[in-house]
Amino acid sequence: MADQSRKKGDVSFPFDASVGYQVRVTHRLIQRFLQQKIQSSGVTLGMWYFLRALWDEDGLTQTELSERVGTMEPTALDAIKAMGQLGIVHRVRNPDDKRKINIYLTEHGWTLKKELLPEVRRIHEAFTDGLSPREIASLLGLLKHIQGNLLVLSADGGTAASDVSLPP
Amino acid sequence: MADQSRKKGDVSFPFDASVGYQVRVTHRLIQRFLQQKIQSSGVTLGMWYFLRALWDEDGLTQTELSERVGTMEPTALDAIKAMGQLGIVHRVRNPDDKRKINIYLTEHGWTLKKELLPEVRRIHEAFTDGLSPREIASLLGLLKHIQGNLLVLSADGGTAASDVSLPP
Repeated sequence: MADQSRKKGDVSFPFDASVGYQVRVTHRLIQRFLQQKIQSSGVTLGMWYFLRALWDEDGLTQTELSERVGTMEPTALDAIKAMGQLGIVHRVRNPDDKRKINIYLTEHGWTLKKELLPEVRRIHEAFTDGLSPREIASLLGLLKHIQGNLLVLSADGGTAASDVSLPP
Repeated sequence: MADQSRKKGDVSFPFDASVGYQVRVTHRLIQRFLQQKIQSSGVTLGMWYFLRALWDEDGLTQTELSERVGTMEPTALDAIKAMGQLGIVHRVRNPDDKRKINIYLTEHGWTLKKELLPEVRRIHEAFTDGLSPREIASLLGLLKHIQGNLLVLSADGGTAASDVSLPP
């Protein structure tokens, strides 16, 4: 079939108009760029947001980390294990509640914050270049509005939502 | 930022202000909801955007599909193979250029469009509920602006960008 004769389907929902598609493309491009910037430190995308959460609140439990980052607990456990092997975190059984394990950053984990966080702020500035602070605030607000809708919809949709595991 | 009793690190780049983080959370919530809605048809998230692209332009080559969906060719090949096994697409060697393989939807592939696309439009309406058409257009515009920046940045960053493989 020659190119010019390619049959076009009825485009009833083009990618250009799809928030889902545009969010996905943006997410992939950001992740790809982020990965390039952090990989020399040994930190992977799979660990990144757990590390971000710990820089913010050191000593979170495994369950809290999983909640903060929005992943299933097995995914969180894998990431924590990998970070432990790299000497970024260590696990401490909670003295008050033996069922809980708190995750603490090591010296190396804190050093990574000093190295990587300024770099990530620069990435953020670079990919939002040309947008005013007001436009960035508007973007964040619109995304949070959609997140709010989706949380309600998933809750309405029954039990399945929280059982679906996605790659980090 | 209210300080809780837990010792907080110096939050120099909170998740709330991070476009990368908010895009990621939104993406994951949309994907999760979408997966719930399409899984009964046998279509997975890994196939979804390839299917969307074919509904739009049937007969794309494997390379074109990979470009449209923004994944690496091996990922595209896996998705096409899985769709072939489900009887959603068939592969036809291009008569004019034997190196190319065109991917065509089967009858079943077109039936899925009739079933799933209206459903996906409803999902889109549901998760953008409360936003005006102007706000949705603004969101799409802001995301595309960021995508444009990232494409330039990745190109500046040298050869690595296109070699980084990410999950679909």
